Amino acid sequence: MRYSHLFGKTFKESPKDATLISHKLLYRAGYIRESTAGRYYLLPLGMRVHQKIQSIIKEEMDKTGAQEMITPILHPKSLWKETNRTSSVGFELMSIKDRSETEFVLGGTAEEMLVDLVRKFQISYKDLPFILYQFSTKFRDEMRARGGLLRLREFVMKDGYSFHSTEEDFKKWYKKMGDTYTKIFERLGLKTLIVESDNGYIGGEYCHEFVVESQIGESKFFMTDDGEYAAHEEVAQFQRDSKNIDEKEKPMEEVKAMRGNTMEDGVKLHNMPLWQQIKDLMMVDEKGNMILAVIRGDLEVNEIKLMHLAKVYKLRHATEREIREIGSEPGFISPIGLAEKAKKSGKHLVIIGDISLRTIKNAYTGANVKYLDLLNVNIDRDYTLDIEGDIAFARPGYLSPHGKILVAKRGIEVGNIFQLGFHYSSKMRGACFTDVDGSEKPYYMGCYGIGLARTMAAIVEIYNDEKGIVWPEAVAPFQAHLIEIQKSKVKSFGQEIYDELKKAGVDVLYDDRDIRAGEKFADADLIGIPVRLVVSPRSGDKIELKERKSGKIELLTLQDILKYFRA
Amino acid sequence: MRYSHLFGKTFKESPKDATLISHKLLYRAGYIRESTAGRYYLLPLGMRVHQKIQSIIKEEMDKTGAQEMITPILHPKSLWKETNRTSSVGFELMSIKDRSETEFVLGGTAEEMLVDLVRKFQISYKDLPFILYQFSTKFRDEMRARGGLLRLREFVMKDGYSFHSTEEDFKKWYKKMGDTYTKIFERLGLKTLIVESDNGYIGGEYCHEFVVESQIGESKFFMTDDGEYAAHEEVAQFQRDSKNIDEKEKPMEEVKAMRGNTMEDGVKLHNMPLWQQIKDLMMVDEKGNMILAVIRGDLEVNEIKLMHLAKVYKLRHATEREIREIGSEPGFISPIGLAEKAKKSGKHLVIIGDISLRTIKNAYTGANVKYLDLLNVNIDRDYTLDIEGDIAFARPGYLSPHGKILVAKRGIEVGNIFQLGFHYSSKMRGACFTDVDGSEKPYYMGCYGIGLARTMAAIVEIYNDEKGIVWPEAVAPFQAHLIEIQKSKVKSFGQEIYDELKKAGVDVLYDDRDIRAGEKFADADLIGIPVRLVVSPRSGDKIELKERKSGKIELLTLQDILKYFRA
Repeated sequence: MRYSHLFGKTFKESPKDATLISHKLLYRAGYIRESTAGRYYLLPLGMRVHQKIQSIIKEEMDKTGAQEMITPILHPKSLWKETNRTSSVGFELMSIKDRSETEFVLGGTAEEMLVDLVRKFQISYKDLPFILYQFSTKFRDEMRARGGLLRLREFVMKDGYSFHSTEEDFKKWYKKMGDTYTKIFERLGLKTLIVESDNGYIGGEYCHEFVVESQIGESKFFMTDDGEYAAHEEVAQFQRDSKNIDEKEKPMEEVKAMRGNTMEDGVKLHNMPLWQQIKDLMMVDEKGNMILAVIRGDLEVNEIKLMHLAKVYKLRHATEREIREIGSEPGFISPIGLAEKAKKSGKHLVIIGDISLRTIKNAYTGANVKYLDLLNVNIDRDYTLDIEGDIAFARPGYLSPHGKILVAKRGIEVGNIFQLGFHYSSKMRGACFTDVDGSEKPYYMGCYGIGLARTMAAIVEIYNDEKGIVWPEAVAPFQAHLIEIQKSKVKSFGQEIYDELKKAGVDVLYDDRDIRAGEKFADADLIGIPVRLVVSPRSGDKIELKERKSGKIELLTLQDILKYFRA
Repeated sequence: MRYSHLFGKTFKESPKDATLISHKLLYRAGYIRESTAGRYYLLPLGMRVHQKIQSIIKEEMDKTGAQEMITPILHPKSLWKETNRTSSVGFELMSIKDRSETEFVLGGTAEEMLVDLVRKFQISYKDLPFILYQFSTKFRDEMRARGGLLRLREFVMKDGYSFHSTEEDFKKWYKKMGDTYTKIFERLGLKTLIVESDNGYIGGEYCHEFVVESQIGESKFFMTDDGEYAAHEEVAQFQRDSKNIDEKEKPMEEVKAMRGNTMEDGVKLHNMPLWQQIKDLMMVDEKGNMILAVIRGDLEVNEIKLMHLAKVYKLRHATEREIREIGSEPGFISPIGLAEKAKKSGKHLVIIGDISLRTIKNAYTGANVKYLDLLNVNIDRDYTLDIEGDIAFARPGYLSPHGKILVAKRGIEVGNIFQLGFHYSSKMRGACFTDVDGSEKPYYMGCYGIGLARTMAAIVEIYNDEKGIVWPEAVAPFQAHLIEIQKSKVKSFGQEIYDELKKAGVDVLYDDRDIRAGEKFADADLIGIPVRLVVSPRSGDKIELKERKSGKIELLTLQDILKYFRA
């Protein structure tokens, strides 16, 4: 293609609000333009890269036996109601009515659609397993879009859905999909880490993110140096260190406590360590039920973990009034005796405690009454929990479940794989298959996503230098960038080379403009095609080949050049 | 691919409401499933056909130098307001707000988006012309969807937009795009007619439909036998035959007319031919202005033509009350003296007459008063028109502008090309380029669309027999359909052939199921892959090759088969 004909030329300035290198470079080099925040045009150059990413994903998906199909973008809202996702997804979901007042949602993910499709067929165990996938535009009404392609409100996602007769079969495929993802990202030039993560509103019991390590990434996770453990901060587990666990239990004692409402006020008043204090957090779920989270004083409550343990999908902090209504007092909340008080007040309360409470003895906490504290409080003896589990945030330096130090990392999430289990097939009527014995069973499911535009941004974040983008060959918009210096008016050698390269099937961008050589070189570096070819009077009938990445320069004949691209 | 693994098996029954052969066959053969009316899943087989159609369109578009890109699906409504299309499109347009209350429309066509993109760049005459195109999902909230893929509410469209510095340049490209479309459809197996048509809410001055002749088509058009004239019924022109044009004009006369309100009542009362009567139709436009359409009595008013002449985008019949308010009387409307009456009543009236009024003399019509008619009415002498032009419907048997008989036809509209001229660039601020002399000028535009799913339906409507679909090679989901009869338990010859074909790069669907041969044959015919291969104990180590279209059968060796596909 001739550069003079290309729509979307290079630009000197970055957008004013651009902070990310991928945003700046993709904009300046003519790959993208913003329509409105989080919604982008892909210009012809950008489209080429996007399509190469898509082809590689498709090739690898097809190799696994997955089958491409497509669902409508407008999903009947009635399906999302079957699984109760209209409430759990919240604001990110965009709804629309057609002229007959039928309600639709703009698909952000398509589990219900796939199950609705599959249940239209009589599926038998012989048909299972199968994986269906699509490339389709997805919509997320994000609170904040990030510059460029990193977090969009509208983007093409490869979303795949697998259907299985047994959990064992699913597990094999989950592994296979994980391996396929690693291979896809490798082909795209990206080294990914597989990180345990939270499933958000997708549902299911476990899932993994594919993350490209990067300081600008929004995925915060912990990893051990040996790489054996990697988990998103929302789900990362860690070993609780024992504190004064060998101490003898002393009798519980109620004391006057003329103090403020914070943890620090307690530490000062009693002159005891923070870890010996019990932290009590009163929360309210989406139904208005009260949840008391109890944890060792030096740890923080992780609301994602708390929601999973409580099996709720929304949480907010209780107001002072709500705390008093249940029989407690802000700043003096305590699990001791609160269950009875709640019962009297007619409120529903669930007390959920972190396993760290078993690492301390003779703790101190409030007494559910203003200016009264309790000393020498001990679990089991003085209070019990409705649910006991892991509700704490990990921190750098803590020990992983296998005993290695957790290191904090950041990265760009480019893909996800989810175990869904029976999450959808149990909620949607008729989502079942006929097993060998003739019985009807719900299918066991998984789902698998890759965001194409974000992957493109991640590649640019990794592959760039001070001059511009340095595309890996596999996704570069063209194979070669041809520049002619001092075009002869009689006959253009550049044109000759261009024609020969095209004839040989080399995908080449030919800068045929009448401008200074320096400008052409700068544009070539900015655009980032792996190979630059220069013809000039100085090099005679030889052609200068420069590799964008290594900077290596060679003077070659046309035959050598053609050989180079055949290799 | 093994048929046992394919998602979307054949089905015995058609959907209850299915009337179209393409709907029935695509459903039964496992290509499509409905989500909600007008919104379809493409199953893996359907996806393959859709992708082949897409590839062929892309190849031919790229050959012209057109450049693929993509716009967001959600268009800022503010852009559609710049061109006033939010009003003219009407119900078919779906709107949605995001969480920040910004309004978007679900794109049904993307002229504003493209202009908004292009005006972000400083375009000079050197950059022109260029054509940008995309494959993207389009939304039309159609009143009625038709079964299957023929008229959808959501579908992938190839939409292209061209930008030019002059009308001459545009005209070259319009021709080139037309030729490209003909070529695309030819490669898809479709013979298309190029039919002048109405531009609907797209705007511009002229446009052409690409139509596949078919009795189930919704495009009604006229054509001459020599093929030199073809036009949609909404725009078809025809010669008005002269009636009593040589008669001497007699003095106008007012007569009592105790008659009903219809044209027939007038014919009976005055005992004169229908064509000598003047037909008067009082209409109201979107602004509430009155338009009187006047035409020879034997012709019908074409509201599309009327709207274009009047430069309005909505019309409805006036109520009896509105007719009286302007100073006339239902059933007795007449152009004579009505302009003055309208002025007195303070109403805005435009009188638009058909050119057929010049083919009659001494006509009769109402007198704007109940039970009063006028005789011997003559144009120019007794009444004048604000606008005179073509507002009549053509009929079979009329003469085309070049004097040949018009024949009525029906067809499926698979593509469109539109002259847009300055329609968008004049309305949208900054939609201009810098010309050679440094001045800023709006660009001259065209646009070009192909509906992929409808094209797929059209192919099936043309290519089918009583057993099923008969795909043209270019779009068939697979090249060959391999069937094994009486699989040996020791070693499968079918499997061997399957492996060999795959190794040779032949795209083959292998029916490996354990069912009766008859069922496999029926499924193969229904699915419609061009070549069926059968291995059976009877044919030994030879393979039976049957062409779906011709029914021709040959017994061939594996080597011959491989040669067949290499050819």
